[in-house]
Amino acid sequence: MKFTPDALIGQGVDGVDTPAACIDLDAMERNIERMAGFARRHGLRWRPHAKMHKSAELALLLTQAGACGHCVQKLSEAEALAAGGVRDLFISNEVIAPHKLLRVARLAAELAARGGRLAIAVDSPEGIARLAQAMDGAGSEAGIDVFVEIDVGQGRCGAAPGPEAAALALAVAAHPRLRFAGLHAYQGGAQHLRGVDQRRAAIAHAAQAAAATRALIEAAGLVAPLVTGAGTGTMAHEAASGVYGELQAGSFLFMDADYAANEPDAAQPAFEQALFIKTQVISVRAQHAVCDAGHKSHAIDSGLPLLHGLPPERALRYANGGDEHGILHPASAAARLPALGESLWLIPGHCDPTVNLHDRLIGVRGGLDHGVVERVIRVDARGAVT
Amino acid sequence: MKFTPDALIGQGVDGVDTPAACIDLDAMERNIERMAGFARRHGLRWRPHAKMHKSAELALLLTQAGACGHCVQKLSEAEALAAGGVRDLFISNEVIAPHKLLRVARLAAELAARGGRLAIAVDSPEGIARLAQAMDGAGSEAGIDVFVEIDVGQGRCGAAPGPEAAALALAVAAHPRLRFAGLHAYQGGAQHLRGVDQRRAAIAHAAQAAAATRALIEAAGLVAPLVTGAGTGTMAHEAASGVYGELQAGSFLFMDADYAANEPDAAQPAFEQALFIKTQVISVRAQHAVCDAGHKSHAIDSGLPLLHGLPPERALRYANGGDEHGILHPASAAARLPALGESLWLIPGHCDPTVNLHDRLIGVRGGLDHGVVERVIRVDARGAVT
Repeated sequence: MKFTPDALIGQGVDGVDTPAACIDLDAMERNIERMAGFARRHGLRWRPHAKMHKSAELALLLTQAGACGHCVQKLSEAEALAAGGVRDLFISNEVIAPHKLLRVARLAAELAARGGRLAIAVDSPEGIARLAQAMDGAGSEAGIDVFVEIDVGQGRCGAAPGPEAAALALAVAAHPRLRFAGLHAYQGGAQHLRGVDQRRAAIAHAAQAAAATRALIEAAGLVAPLVTGAGTGTMAHEAASGVYGELQAGSFLFMDADYAANEPDAAQPAFEQALFIKTQVISVRAQHAVCDAGHKSHAIDSGLPLLHGLPPERALRYANGGDEHGILHPASAAARLPALGESLWLIPGHCDPTVNLHDRLIGVRGGLDHGVVERVIRVDARGAVT
Repeated sequence: MKFTPDALIGQGVDGVDTPAACIDLDAMERNIERMAGFARRHGLRWRPHAKMHKSAELALLLTQAGACGHCVQKLSEAEALAAGGVRDLFISNEVIAPHKLLRVARLAAELAARGGRLAIAVDSPEGIARLAQAMDGAGSEAGIDVFVEIDVGQGRCGAAPGPEAAALALAVAAHPRLRFAGLHAYQGGAQHLRGVDQRRAAIAHAAQAAAATRALIEAAGLVAPLVTGAGTGTMAHEAASGVYGELQAGSFLFMDADYAANEPDAAQPAFEQALFIKTQVISVRAQHAVCDAGHKSHAIDSGLPLLHGLPPERALRYANGGDEHGILHPASAAARLPALGESLWLIPGHCDPTVNLHDRLIGVRGGLDHGVVERVIRVDARGAVT
């Protein structure tokens, strides 16, 4: 009466039940090498964003490859990864609830005791005061690294660059338990600007805003040790800026259809698709077929999935069939429908929320056609939204 | 180091960490009474679709209220609910993989041994043959109820109404272990047609197609015991048709913004919103605020969430802030921004995939403003997509 198979390891990929989130391990490892090499060549730290993969196992693999630590977006993600052995974490987001800030303080103490550290972002005087109060009340000597988040163009969280942000930096530094660690300057809105020139211009603006804010802070006598930011769509531009010291890109590990739709940029590493949804055709009608993967299997916030690896005479277009189904149409007049029972591979529109739908990722070695399941990767922080 | 609180029961709703999927239990129970009363007045069976709530606890509550059984869309959902004590299940979908059909056969035997039953849908001769083979090979005397799915206008799965479907019914009946149970005739595409007249016309067409197919089958000497279908958006029309004997509506339990956007229909029960996402304001900027619920907390396939219960001077509009954030704008020039740390309630765009993001639902008694957590409802089949 269990709804998940016990052990897939060693099975051929043919035996993987559908729909399933599968990782092409060879492709993923090449992506890690590309990222590590890029950071090394630019002399930059990289702290990949674990909001994408949400897995302690993958975080530790990235640490082995040279990552200096990991970003998360939520406290509960940090707790789940820490429970899985990750020791250096940055909550790149604001935490405001007092009971949550007590958990932040406890986690900071626990990571410090294990030789690691916790960092967090702030964007308001009230947020700093609440964080300081929680750190004071935690009954531990541990401190916490605090980054002032600045809004470098996304229009979401973050203080205005310039005097507002500089004042926050000084407020952080005034508290003995808070270590001012620098500026968090992520331009999320630039990641999927389609044109290379658009992305370059957006990051030039972000870097200029971060540099000006840092200059103000340093003019006030405070050292701003680091500017951290960058995503998979723009990291070459942050790297070239001379302003950013740390890259937060996370999607490079798996990639998705939305990133693939960006105009290619020769300055960026050529990451390849590593996350696929295996699906099966469960109904074939006169003009269309239906597969068993709908948007409970892959997130559609950034568009519908693409079909992977089909030759022109079998090319298909995926149309929305609701939560549990995909509608498959021939992609051209010459293409034919798939057969009942046939397995197909989807490239999700957006990797992060797709991974968050799955309790585990099936790691395949040797390619999608004839590979073998080598590892089943637990998504430790799946559903960790608090 | 756990990312979920241990026990919320008895706490005030103020203490519920955000974001969280909360159920207004009073509203939910009124919805159940409305549904049970509607079915009773029309002399119809109701078999609510558990693809929406995915919870054995809620399924058993609905059984107590008069539901004859439960629909699911996936085998793994059926297995999860059966493990939670549910005994009468209809997989309203096609299952094609032979290893899955063996699990179907095992589940049919197990439910029969517990005094229950399993039903499944088919829409092809190959699907019937594979199901029959699995049932023969399962080493049990148990049978399975089989509905022939017909496409009554949605254009997804389902045989064409008329001779194609009638031939499938005869093929089912020819196999001793398969019990022909009738027609599955769900018009999913009609549920969110905005106008009452559009919905009525779509269901008139569906009912006519089902009636004509049933007549063909009965002319061939086979009894078609039941036509099953209907959703929360159209059930009054299936009920009035005289063709449908069973209603599958599931969303009535929680409702969502997409259903609320339909033109009201006096013939339908007036279901009310019972599912809410509690969220907190984590950043307040000059022109907008940011809350901690993005589309990892609520599905946006059917639109963005609405803010619940705010007076005009505080009315807000939710804009997409990505996976972990919502952007809040004043809904009018006269409205003001919320305060940092303030709690707000969202009405999700679409209930089914929103529930599927959460491992548990927080059941609140006594209203969202001052209520108390009465039960924490496990979403047993969360992520059960296979």
